[in-house]
Amino acid sequence: MQTKSFSIGIDIGGTNTAFGIVTRRGDMLFQDKLHTKDYETPELFIAAIKAKLEPEINKLGKEKFNGIGIGAPNANFYTGEIVLAANLIWKGVIPLRKLAEDAFELPVAVTNDANATAIGEMIYGSAKGMKNFILVTLGTGVGSGFVANGQLIYGHDGFAGELGHVIAVRDGRTCGCGRKGCLETYASATGIVRTAMEILESNTDTSGEDKEGWLRHSFKKNGKVSSSEIHEAAVAGDPLAKEIFDYTGKMLGQTLADMVAITSPESIILFGGLAKAGDFILAPTKRYMEDNMLAIFKDKIDIIPSGLVERDAAILGSAALAWE
Amino acid sequence: MQTKSFSIGIDIGGTNTAFGIVTRRGDMLFQDKLHTKDYETPELFIAAIKAKLEPEINKLGKEKFNGIGIGAPNANFYTGEIVLAANLIWKGVIPLRKLAEDAFELPVAVTNDANATAIGEMIYGSAKGMKNFILVTLGTGVGSGFVANGQLIYGHDGFAGELGHVIAVRDGRTCGCGRKGCLETYASATGIVRTAMEILESNTDTSGEDKEGWLRHSFKKNGKVSSSEIHEAAVAGDPLAKEIFDYTGKMLGQTLADMVAITSPESIILFGGLAKAGDFILAPTKRYMEDNMLAIFKDKIDIIPSGLVERDAAILGSAALAWE
Repeated sequence: MQTKSFSIGIDIGGTNTAFGIVTRRGDMLFQDKLHTKDYETPELFIAAIKAKLEPEINKLGKEKFNGIGIGAPNANFYTGEIVLAANLIWKGVIPLRKLAEDAFELPVAVTNDANATAIGEMIYGSAKGMKNFILVTLGTGVGSGFVANGQLIYGHDGFAGELGHVIAVRDGRTCGCGRKGCLETYASATGIVRTAMEILESNTDTSGEDKEGWLRHSFKKNGKVSSSEIHEAAVAGDPLAKEIFDYTGKMLGQTLADMVAITSPESIILFGGLAKAGDFILAPTKRYMEDNMLAIFKDKIDIIPSGLVERDAAILGSAALAWE
Repeated sequence: MQTKSFSIGIDIGGTNTAFGIVTRRGDMLFQDKLHTKDYETPELFIAAIKAKLEPEINKLGKEKFNGIGIGAPNANFYTGEIVLAANLIWKGVIPLRKLAEDAFELPVAVTNDANATAIGEMIYGSAKGMKNFILVTLGTGVGSGFVANGQLIYGHDGFAGELGHVIAVRDGRTCGCGRKGCLETYASATGIVRTAMEILESNTDTSGEDKEGWLRHSFKKNGKVSSSEIHEAAVAGDPLAKEIFDYTGKMLGQTLADMVAITSPESIILFGGLAKAGDFILAPTKRYMEDNMLAIFKDKIDIIPSGLVERDAAILGSAALAWE
């Protein structure tokens, strides 16, 4: 039995990093964040987090801290390293676990941000009590954590769960990973913008229902649209925005149907910026998943939104890593 | 610690059923088979197996038997039932575990044939000591068993591992499951024949290198080719046969690249009729998998043939189920 009372969760994103002090029950005692890109080196970055956390650690008593869990892009559970993360400004291989252990003098466990979120959902969120589920993060990219038999699948190398780089469209859109057609190029915040721009730039038909639509108006004014504008347009009833969500849900739902055939999950949990669009993304994803699914899985698998406040999930999940 | 000495493994296939008595170490003391299709009902089928096994059980002493493991198409580990198996003549839901328990008066565990084979490979075959691997069966259909963290992934419903029904080509060939483009329609013994027939029937070019080829000759004579003829033609150096294997390996390799991104296996083991073609299928599968794989997985994952005699693997795997 663990007798320590607190652990630290750190969620490193390409833009922001959030961190907090968490009790075993999942209560967040302290929480703060900083801009990841403000720090030229990982050493300076870790030092900045330490400067913010140290007073709080000392207040509670360092001897009561169990350890630190860190979720980060391309982070490896086995090696404790960040490897070739496209979304971080620090290049190459970063010995994250070692840097954090040296700085904090506490045990550190590391995994990728989606895996950390999956653990957070399993212990404190929508997947509480589930032994088989898929967590999908729809942010700047697409990430995932697959849980089977109550355990996260890390795989042999610790790099399992790269749903964003499953091919959604063979020879499709160019991906940051150097390949083509990855799900991430369609079903992320950047992917949905690419879909919108393709439609807006190619559709010269001025007779259509969307002629005076919200989104086309915005595009004509600015020459571009953002993912939140697409969401706002859908809320405003713009049929073009709904068409864009429908296509995004199709790409995601079709791919999830294949994932279901492999891991037979109880539920699929959607997390992250794009998931906040609620039924605009959930409904078409569910419909296309059902349409493309093998008969034995039909009408059995829920697609549900995250049960955690966005930033909290990864902090809680990362902190939970430290209890294991 | 288990003190019993023997268990029974039964491998039910659409055409043949093999069964045997296995020691804990994996030695096969007795082995026999029968034609699955000869039995109109599952009750008659179980009675026929019992008639063959009972004298052997009595000879060794029934009290020394731990139980029975059965691998069967569409069999469910949790419910003990066979559900809607396209390749069996018995339709609907068959309470296989209950039928066998009533007949033999021994504990019975049931799973699908590919899962049973994966357990066989893990305990006695090519996957010995591996905690993360994928077993792919290339037979009449395509089956699979995914092992993560040293455990078979059954999933929430017990139907995980349906690699054969992952979509290899969107809107591709019609599959027996009612959908289109399933891997099984390309990378199985029946799939490779479909590929061959498509090429042979559509290619009216008589100037090509394959004009006098082995396979085209056989096709002209019989109006069709078999999967073993395709293999023989490849062995004989027929470039058309190699083209057919190349395409089959492409479909399989591309799909496996996606599976690697999800479960990050140490190795992928190919089993079954088509796998016997050796390098004709292994080499293109490996090449297309590598070409389509995310950088972090490249040059790390072996594709290896089964380490077990074909019929033995599923019997051993099924028997191993009974030890658990």
